[in-house]
Amino acid sequence: MDTKSKKILAAFKRQGARIETRARVKLAVKKDFSLWYTPGVAVASSYLAKHPKETRNLSVKKNSVAVVSDGSAVLGLGNIGPYGALPVMEGKALIFKGKANIDAWPLVLDTQDPDEIVRIVKAIAPSFGGINLEDIAAPKCFDIEKRLVEELDIPVMHDDQHGTAIVVLAGLINAAKVVKKDMKKLRVVISGAGAAGTAVAKLLVAAGVKDIVLLDRLGTIYAGRADLNSHKAELAKLTNPRKVKGDLADAMRDVDVFIGVSGRGLLKAAHVASMAPRSIIFAMANPEPEILPEDARRAGAAVIATGRSDFPNQINNSLVFPGIFRGALDKGVKKITQETKIRAARALATLVVRPTAAKIIPDMLDPRVMKAVARAVH
Amino acid sequence: MDTKSKKILAAFKRQGARIETRARVKLAVKKDFSLWYTPGVAVASSYLAKHPKETRNLSVKKNSVAVVSDGSAVLGLGNIGPYGALPVMEGKALIFKGKANIDAWPLVLDTQDPDEIVRIVKAIAPSFGGINLEDIAAPKCFDIEKRLVEELDIPVMHDDQHGTAIVVLAGLINAAKVVKKDMKKLRVVISGAGAAGTAVAKLLVAAGVKDIVLLDRLGTIYAGRADLNSHKAELAKLTNPRKVKGDLADAMRDVDVFIGVSGRGLLKAAHVASMAPRSIIFAMANPEPEILPEDARRAGAAVIATGRSDFPNQINNSLVFPGIFRGALDKGVKKITQETKIRAARALATLVVRPTAAKIIPDMLDPRVMKAVARAVH
Repeated sequence: MDTKSKKILAAFKRQGARIETRARVKLAVKKDFSLWYTPGVAVASSYLAKHPKETRNLSVKKNSVAVVSDGSAVLGLGNIGPYGALPVMEGKALIFKGKANIDAWPLVLDTQDPDEIVRIVKAIAPSFGGINLEDIAAPKCFDIEKRLVEELDIPVMHDDQHGTAIVVLAGLINAAKVVKKDMKKLRVVISGAGAAGTAVAKLLVAAGVKDIVLLDRLGTIYAGRADLNSHKAELAKLTNPRKVKGDLADAMRDVDVFIGVSGRGLLKAAHVASMAPRSIIFAMANPEPEILPEDARRAGAAVIATGRSDFPNQINNSLVFPGIFRGALDKGVKKITQETKIRAARALATLVVRPTAAKIIPDMLDPRVMKAVARAVH
Repeated sequence: MDTKSKKILAAFKRQGARIETRARVKLAVKKDFSLWYTPGVAVASSYLAKHPKETRNLSVKKNSVAVVSDGSAVLGLGNIGPYGALPVMEGKALIFKGKANIDAWPLVLDTQDPDEIVRIVKAIAPSFGGINLEDIAAPKCFDIEKRLVEELDIPVMHDDQHGTAIVVLAGLINAAKVVKKDMKKLRVVISGAGAAGTAVAKLLVAAGVKDIVLLDRLGTIYAGRADLNSHKAELAKLTNPRKVKGDLADAMRDVDVFIGVSGRGLLKAAHVASMAPRSIIFAMANPEPEILPEDARRAGAAVIATGRSDFPNQINNSLVFPGIFRGALDKGVKKITQETKIRAARALATLVVRPTAAKIIPDMLDPRVMKAVARAVH
C-alpha cells in the first residue's frame, strides 16, 4: 500500500462510521416516552395496520432510501463482496444526506443470487421510501432492477446505470453545443456494455441519438453476433445502424463521440486522431481513465471529460442520485422513466449557461444541482 | 378513535419520521468528497475485501443495530404486519440512540416465514453490529433467534424474550428483599407461555428459582400434557416440580409471586387473596395489566409492578436493551448468555439501594441504568 493509501486508511480507521442516526424528537421526560414509545406508539401502529399507505406520512419511510449492494461489481474493484462494498454504500448514504437531506442506510447483502436479492429487497422495502441499487454486476443487475421496479410501490433505481446515463446525457447536450454539432446526428462509440454502457446507450437512443456503436471485450455489438446474451442482443437491435464490425480502432473511425465506461488506458492517441473533427471524449473509467485528458487533447479532441475530480468536467453520479430520490420522495413518484431521466439531464445541462470545452457539466459543489434534478422528477 | 388517540395520531402525522441520519464527516470542499467518497473510499473497500473482520472498525457496523420485526406479534395488538410494526421499531431505534448512542435502523419485513426471516437477517447482517429481533410471534421466534445466534458473528437478541426476562429478574431480586423472602425459594406463577413467559421462566430457573408454574390458555404446563409443542414440552421439563394441574386458580394457591405476560384483567382479587402472605404481583400486560395495582393491593399483595409508566415499578425493556447492545458493541461480545443476563439483572437491581414496595426497579429516566447494564455484558 502506498503512502497516500495508508493515510486514507488511517483516516477511515480514526473515523469509524461516517453516518449515524439522530433523534428528531425529544426523550427527556416520561411524557416523551409515553407519546413516542409505549403506549402512544400503539395508536400509530394500529392506524398503519389498517392504512398501510399512510406509512410514508408518519414514519422513517417518508424520507428514507436503502442503498443496497451485493458487492459483485464495486467501483473498478470487481466482485469484492458485501464488506468491501460497505464503505461505498456508506459514502453514498453520506452524500444522500449532505446533498438532499435524505436518510439513507447502507445495506450490503451476504448473497449474490439474483432471486435472493429480489426477495430480500422486497422484504425490507416497507421501512424505506426508495431503493438505490448499487454496484451489482451486469447482466443480473438488469433483471433485478426490472423485477423490483415492477413489484414494489416505491422508486427503485440502479444508480450505476441511470445515474451515469443521466450525467452523460447532460454532458453530451452541452458538449454538442461547444463543438456546434446537432446532438441527434452525433456518431457515438460506447466502450463497455455493462450496467453503465447499456443504460447510457438506451438513454441516448431515447434522447434521439441515432448512431451508437457499443463495444464489449470481444468488439462491436451488432445484430447477429453469435455470442450475445439477451441483454446485448436487445442492445444490438437498438444500436449500430451502420453494422460496424471489428474492434475499437474500427469503431472509432470518423465518429464524433467516445464514451468510455470500460478500463484504464484503453483509448490510444491513434484512435482519437481517427475521429471526426471537433471530437468529444468522455473517458470515465475510475480511477484511471481510458485516456488521460492531456493525451486526448494532443491527439485532437475538442471536449474532454472524465470521472475524476482533479480534471475539468467531472462526470459523477453524485450530481444526479440525490435529486432523483429527493424529487421522487417529495412527489410520491414511483417509477423513474426515460422521460424523467431526459428531463433531469436537460435540467443539469441548463445549469451551465454558456458551455465551454472546460465546463460542460455543473460542479459537484454547485448548490443548485440537487434541486434542479429534483424538479425534473414528476 | 377516542380524543386522546386522535391527538397522538395527529402528533405522529405532524412529526413524520422520529429518527434521521446525520453525517459524521464534513462534505464541504472537493477534498472531502475525494477522501470520504471516490476515489478515497476505494482504499477502505479494498482493505475490507481482504480483511472483512475489520469492517466493525471502519464503517457503520461499529455502532449499528438493526431492529427487525415481521409484525407477527406487535405489542398487545397481535399480528398486524410490517407497516403496523414500523412505529414500534422506529421507537426502539429512537431509544437506542437516546439511551445508548447506538445507530439503530428499523427493518420491518414483508414476510412472516421463519426460514425467509433467517435468510434475510443473515443477508443484511454485514452492515450491522447487532440484531435486535422484536415483536415476532412465539413459537417461531425461538427457532429464528436460535439459528441466528448460531450462524451470525454479531450479537442477536429477541428483546421481547430477554429484555423482559432481565427486567423481571431484576425486579424480583429486589421484591424478594422487600418481602424478606429467599428468591430461590419463591413459588412463582407465570401467566403466559409465549416469547416473554418462556424467557422469564428459563432465566429464573438459571438464577436458581426452583418452583415455577407456567400457564398458557389451556392451563398449567406440566410434563406429559398431551397438546404441548416442543418448546412447551421443554418448559415442562424445566418447571412445575409440584406437577400442578388445572387453571389459574389452582396454580395461584399459596404461591409467592405472580408474573403476568398474558392479558388484561385476567387476575382476580380472589386469586391474589389465595396467595401466600406478602405476595408479589408483576402484572405486565400492556396497556391494560392483568390486575390494576389498587385491586391487587386491596386483595393483599405486598409488592406490585406493571408495564405502565403511570404506576410505580414500571417493568420496561427500555431499561435493558440499550445497555445490552452498548456493552456487546463496545466489547465485541457475540453471544448474550444466561450468565450475562443474570449479571445485567443484578446490576439493575443494585441501582436501587434500599428497595421498597414502591421502588423495586430503577426509573427509565435514571441516567445510570444504561451503563450499569452495559458493564454487565462481557
